[in-house]
Amino acid sequence: MSLLTAVPSASTDPEARSRRRTDRSGHPGALPDTVVVADSIEAVQDTLRWANAHRVPVIPRGAGTGLAGGAVAGPGIVLDLSGLDAITALEPVDLTADVQPGVITADLDRAAAAYGLCYAPDPASAALSTIGGNIATNAGGMRCVKYGVTRDAVLGLDVVLADGRRIRTGRRTTKGVAGLDLTSLLVGSEGTLGVIVGATVRLTPRPDQLATVAAAFPTVVAAATACAELTRRRLRPSMLELLDPATLAVIDRQQGTELAARGGALVLAQVDGPGLREQLTAVRQAFAPLAAEVRATEDPDEADALLAARRLALPSIEAEAHALIEDICVPRSRLAEAVEGVAAISARHGVATYTFAHAGDGNLHPILSYDRGLDRPPAEVEAAGDAIFSLALGLGGTVTGEHGIGLLKRAWLAREVGTDTLEVFRSLKRALDPHDILNPGKAL
Amino acid sequence: MSLLTAVPSASTDPEARSRRRTDRSGHPGALPDTVVVADSIEAVQDTLRWANAHRVPVIPRGAGTGLAGGAVAGPGIVLDLSGLDAITALEPVDLTADVQPGVITADLDRAAAAYGLCYAPDPASAALSTIGGNIATNAGGMRCVKYGVTRDAVLGLDVVLADGRRIRTGRRTTKGVAGLDLTSLLVGSEGTLGVIVGATVRLTPRPDQLATVAAAFPTVVAAATACAELTRRRLRPSMLELLDPATLAVIDRQQGTELAARGGALVLAQVDGPGLREQLTAVRQAFAPLAAEVRATEDPDEADALLAARRLALPSIEAEAHALIEDICVPRSRLAEAVEGVAAISARHGVATYTFAHAGDGNLHPILSYDRGLDRPPAEVEAAGDAIFSLALGLGGTVTGEHGIGLLKRAWLAREVGTDTLEVFRSLKRALDPHDILNPGKAL
Repeated sequence: MSLLTAVPSASTDPEARSRRRTDRSGHPGALPDTVVVADSIEAVQDTLRWANAHRVPVIPRGAGTGLAGGAVAGPGIVLDLSGLDAITALEPVDLTADVQPGVITADLDRAAAAYGLCYAPDPASAALSTIGGNIATNAGGMRCVKYGVTRDAVLGLDVVLADGRRIRTGRRTTKGVAGLDLTSLLVGSEGTLGVIVGATVRLTPRPDQLATVAAAFPTVVAAATACAELTRRRLRPSMLELLDPATLAVIDRQQGTELAARGGALVLAQVDGPGLREQLTAVRQAFAPLAAEVRATEDPDEADALLAARRLALPSIEAEAHALIEDICVPRSRLAEAVEGVAAISARHGVATYTFAHAGDGNLHPILSYDRGLDRPPAEVEAAGDAIFSLALGLGGTVTGEHGIGLLKRAWLAREVGTDTLEVFRSLKRALDPHDILNPGKAL
Repeated sequence: MSLLTAVPSASTDPEARSRRRTDRSGHPGALPDTVVVADSIEAVQDTLRWANAHRVPVIPRGAGTGLAGGAVAGPGIVLDLSGLDAITALEPVDLTADVQPGVITADLDRAAAAYGLCYAPDPASAALSTIGGNIATNAGGMRCVKYGVTRDAVLGLDVVLADGRRIRTGRRTTKGVAGLDLTSLLVGSEGTLGVIVGATVRLTPRPDQLATVAAAFPTVVAAATACAELTRRRLRPSMLELLDPATLAVIDRQQGTELAARGGALVLAQVDGPGLREQLTAVRQAFAPLAAEVRATEDPDEADALLAARRLALPSIEAEAHALIEDICVPRSRLAEAVEGVAAISARHGVATYTFAHAGDGNLHPILSYDRGLDRPPAEVEAAGDAIFSLALGLGGTVTGEHGIGLLKRAWLAREVGTDTLEVFRSLKRALDPHDILNPGKAL
């Protein structure tokens, strides 16, 4: 029996295949043979059963916003989950929601807001990306410095295994320790161990008070020192972002602002919840000794204005060049070294590089830019990227803080985790997907 | 080569074996053949290499405070990790500590306190239990309603695999998504997948302000409703405990207090951090409409007095009878039904039962009591326990919120997770421990 017979929603339409050829990684990918736009969990099961029997690769896909190439297609079947997009339950006392994988992340947060709750993980792609994709990559975001990453928000999963069997992992309760934590193993596994067809996620009381601080510092070192001072004062900001001199300069060029005149590095912080004034005062006091300028507001519109620099960073870079978005994470105490190390690599390789960071997590996004006339990053950009990964490992960090290994960073995985650990990953993969049909060649 | 030759710290001393025969589960266990008190990671590796080659079971052990029987011994080797008890690093800016597995949990928290930090997970056994045991069981505690359980605090592990290879899992950074989450898979695996010989754990700014509330309610339903009202008001208490009428009565009998006269259920709550007064006022307002009495304090000694009831609950029960400590977790909205369901089971089976709960997590500890003259729980206690597990599953909950499956709840695991999920657990176990030498017969 052919797949087209086994699964009515399967299609070989060229346009449908072409639209699902790649993701936001910039990798060209290759046309898949077939696309299944899942309209039911049974369709997912039928697809996997057929693919497992015929040893055909299946590339699961949400909105295709991934930056590491986890959803890049090739020969085989693209299994598009984005149509399964219902929020099937929202329990305000339990602080849980049940969602299908295609729910847009921001839509879930909006639904929670109606009950005074939030879905805390907030990747930059939240308005476009799906919760299934967020779970597959263990997405981060700005709020996770206080509220945790996607893994911290997932209580249980509804999963179709490689052979088409459907299992439930985890639980609906806040706590639970019955058996192995398959839920956490699947979160961040980038579609290599199973296909997520549902999730029970944790919701959090939505802070009803929020204050925003923008502080200019003379140098990146001063900015990083001020960020560490927040911890020393026992503060728990709900956002703590740092922009480096190159980023301030490109925003100034493109937006006509004068950020660089104020200082060499900009820190944007938010605090929320009870004791807002007290927290705000403490942040100002922590920043004051080192800052050139500190501005603060509780007004939402003024806060938007203060945060504009962060929001405009990537568009400003992309107005001048192609942008390759990197994603290293280092121990928080090494933040300044990492930002300065990236700047040195940028100079050495002659690649214009802009760094902004989730400073509270030590998570840097160096943006490597290259000529818009080029289809793919030139050799010096690849070399600068490799130098940045080496830098991250040398500082005791990781080559990916929140985007994943996908296709782009596979060569670096073994260098980070070692061959024994990689072999353990692969033995778990073989246990769950013996014929290697699930997103083969990705992540592991 | 014998184990005694291969591992110098191995011993067949009868007293050493007898002391490590069981844990706090009440299970009698059986004498192990050999005990290895590990004095180095190499000794752990040598022990596992030998055991794997000779197909001999290895039962890893910390302080033996587990309540589910995970460290109960039998034929084979007890591998005691409690001697590896150094805190090898504490990085206040990184918010991390590196620990060996035998570090006592409260000692780690105390070391963090010197830097204004805390190690958040606080199982009731914290003064005795080891961090390695906490990780193996994914221990909970009272503070986890706000700060998360052990899994949320573990960033990376140093692990010896069944064949003696040593790997590092996870990372030293706050975030990281390189490869599969072996760290979370090992947390809570109860010694069945590897032996934890080190961990990098997350520290948290220590709240410098704390307020405590004790509120008496006429009924359990009123108390549970008041707890839910805290969520509706977006409050995030750092402790939220509930004591049922039977528990109040036994404390009164044993301690000469008059708790039951104040109301049928007692709720103990704490709030911490910025905006303490504001939070305290909000808790009082949330409790007031339903409470018979609300008392609050910011004074540490008065707080101790208010919390005495919770602290004295188990000793009061144990002054009258043997106590079998259960550990179910239900969705928070089902809390009152669960407490009342346990009381009904208690009456039906004629077993005196006392329930206190981590109300904010829906995690109940029903204590089944039986005659002190008996060595093991009688049939009616076993039957009442089974009825409580059925109740938990019927309410959408789990048979274990924080203690683990161990030896005592194995029969219930398949009923909770289903045979397909159990088979996945076992396939992962086979991948990591093909000869089934690691804590065989436990947890899975």
